[in-house]
Amino acid sequence: MLKRTGSVTLLEEGPLVLGSSAVGGKKEAEGPLGGCFDFLYSDPRAGQKSWEKAETAMQDKAVSLALKKSGLSASEVDLLLNGDLVNQCTPSCYTASKLGIPLAGLFGACSTAAESLGLGALLVESGALRTALCVTSSHFCTAERQFRTPLAYGAQRAPSAQWTVTGAGAFVLGQGGGRGVRLRAVCFGRPIDMGVTDASNMGAAMAPAACDTFSRFFTDSSRSPSDFDLILTGDLGQIGHRIVSERMEQLGLPLGDRYNDCGLMVYDLQRQDMHAGGSGCGCSAVVLAGDVLSRMRAGTFKNVLLAGTGALMSPMSLQQGDSIVGVAHLVWLSCE
Amino acid sequence: MLKRTGSVTLLEEGPLVLGSSAVGGKKEAEGPLGGCFDFLYSDPRAGQKSWEKAETAMQDKAVSLALKKSGLSASEVDLLLNGDLVNQCTPSCYTASKLGIPLAGLFGACSTAAESLGLGALLVESGALRTALCVTSSHFCTAERQFRTPLAYGAQRAPSAQWTVTGAGAFVLGQGGGRGVRLRAVCFGRPIDMGVTDASNMGAAMAPAACDTFSRFFTDSSRSPSDFDLILTGDLGQIGHRIVSERMEQLGLPLGDRYNDCGLMVYDLQRQDMHAGGSGCGCSAVVLAGDVLSRMRAGTFKNVLLAGTGALMSPMSLQQGDSIVGVAHLVWLSCE
Repeated sequence: MLKRTGSVTLLEEGPLVLGSSAVGGKKEAEGPLGGCFDFLYSDPRAGQKSWEKAETAMQDKAVSLALKKSGLSASEVDLLLNGDLVNQCTPSCYTASKLGIPLAGLFGACSTAAESLGLGALLVESGALRTALCVTSSHFCTAERQFRTPLAYGAQRAPSAQWTVTGAGAFVLGQGGGRGVRLRAVCFGRPIDMGVTDASNMGAAMAPAACDTFSRFFTDSSRSPSDFDLILTGDLGQIGHRIVSERMEQLGLPLGDRYNDCGLMVYDLQRQDMHAGGSGCGCSAVVLAGDVLSRMRAGTFKNVLLAGTGALMSPMSLQQGDSIVGVAHLVWLSCE
Repeated sequence: MLKRTGSVTLLEEGPLVLGSSAVGGKKEAEGPLGGCFDFLYSDPRAGQKSWEKAETAMQDKAVSLALKKSGLSASEVDLLLNGDLVNQCTPSCYTASKLGIPLAGLFGACSTAAESLGLGALLVESGALRTALCVTSSHFCTAERQFRTPLAYGAQRAPSAQWTVTGAGAFVLGQGGGRGVRLRAVCFGRPIDMGVTDASNMGAAMAPAACDTFSRFFTDSSRSPSDFDLILTGDLGQIGHRIVSERMEQLGLPLGDRYNDCGLMVYDLQRQDMHAGGSGCGCSAVVLAGDVLSRMRAGTFKNVLLAGTGALMSPMSLQQGDSIVGVAHLVWLSCE
C-alpha cells in the first residue's frame, strides 16, 4: 500500500532488500570501510582494456554478487534500474545488455543509488513489479577525464575537490515477509541551481538540494530528525556536510550527530589525502550496501535516511556559462 | 489497480493523459505533420546562443503548453520524468531546474518518451504519485555534433542515416474519470546488442529490441496485433521498419498495415531528402503528442501501441570497439 502525503510517498509494507553488494577499488580497500566490501579490485582497470570497461566489469560483479545473496537468478528480476556518470551511461548499458532483463535507464548523476531505490521501491510496493534490481557505479578515472581534466595532465587538485569512488553497488528489492531492511518512504528531489560554477566544489553545489529534500520530507511526513538513528547524504564531503548541518539548524530541524555523509565515511580524508571527501554514484551505493545495511541488520540502526545527492553537471554547459544543478533523492530504510 | 502478467504490467483504470504538446523546428514544420504541432520554431537556435540552450527552450515550451492544456500548474505536478540525448541530459536538467518540482531523470536515448510514459503511468496508477509530467526532446544540431560529426564538416550522409528530430514533447498524466486517452499497459524493453557498430544505421541496431518487446508483450498479455488499430515504433526509419515487419511475420505475429514508424511519419522522406527517416527522442514524442493522440481523441484509433525505440549508443564505446545496444519500451494507449 502506498500513501501520498505532500511530496512524500509512504510505503505501508515496504519492499525488502533481498540482497545487496558493494564492490570497490584500491583506495576504497585502503579506507576505513575496506573490510565491508564484498569484492575489491586491486587493479583500477579490473583486467580490462579501458577504464569504462573496468567500470562495466565492476557493475557486472556487483550485480552477480547481489543476485547470489538474494537467491534470485537474473531471469527472476522484473526490471533493472541503473545509471552512472559516464556519457550515455555506458557502463550501465553494457551491464544491462548482458543480463537480458528489462531496463529502465536512469540519469541522476551521483544521486542514482537513491533514485533507483526510490523508483524500485514504489514499483515493487505497488505490484507493478515483483522484483527490481537497483544498480549504480562510478570510477575515478572515467569521471576525471570526462568532467575535469585527463589524469595524464597531472592537474593540481583544489582543497574543495572530491575523489570519485571507484566502485559499484547493487540492491535487489522484492515483496515478502520476514525480517530485513525495508524501504519505508520515498521523496524525490527538486533540482536546485544556486549558481555554483566550480566543478571542483560539488559539495557546495549539491548541499542546497539536500536541505530542500530533508525539509520537505520532515514537514510532509510529520517526522523529525530525532526519529532516525542515522541521517546520510550521498557525497557532499566536508564543505557540503557543513552547509547542510548549518542550514538545517537554521530551519529548526537540526540533524545533530546522527548526520553523516557517505563521502566522509568511505575514505580517511587525512591519511589518504582525499581533500574534501569521496563522491560519485558509487559513493553512497557502496557505503549503503557495504556498511550501513550490515549495521542495520545487526541492530545498530533501526531507521536510516539517505538523501542521495547529485550534481547534474555537464562540462559543455559549464563551458557555455551555465551553473551546476543539484538534486537529492531521499529514501527511508528501516529494520525493525 | 496494477496486474503483472509475465513481463507486462496491465493498468486496470489507466492514468489519463490530461494534456500533451508537440513543439518542432523548421524541417518538422515542412513535413506532413507540420499542421499538428502546438508550436514551431523557424529559428533552429530558438533565439538562444547555443543549440543546447535552444533544445532546453523547446523543452520549456513543450512543458508550459502541456501544463496549460491539462489545467494544472507546475506546483501541482508530483514528479517530472525527463531525459534527452545530450551528454548528462543537459536540456532536461535545465528545464527541470526552472520548474521547481521533483525530478526523476531518465536515460533511455530515443526511447525516453515511452520510458517516461511507462514509469509515469505505473506510478500514477498505483497512487505513488497523483500526477506525472513526462517530457523529452532532441535537436538535430546537438545530436549530430555529439554522436557523429560536427555539422561544419559538411560530411556526406549515408543512405541509411536518419535525421534527428528537432523538437520536444510533453505529457501530463493524472488520475480521474472521464473520456480521454489512457495508458493501459507497460512493457519495459530488454537491451539487445546484435553487434551493429554503424552509427549511421541506427534502425538496424534498434529493430531487434522492438521485435523482442512486441513478442513478449503479445505473448504475456494474450493479445494479438489485430487487437490494435495502430502499432508504432519510435524511430526505426525505413530499414528498421522493414526488419521489424519481416521478423514479426516470421514469429507468427504479423503486424500488417497497421504498423508504422514515427520516423516515417514525421518527414516526407523523398521530398525532404531525409534518407532513412526521422529519429531522436523528439521523434516519437512529437508524433504521439501532435498527431496520434489527436486522432485517438477524434475516434480514428481506439487502441494504439507505441514501442519507443532507443539506441544506447556512446561515441566513446564505439571508439573502443563496442557495438550499439538497442532497447524498446512499450506502452499501450487507449481511448474508448
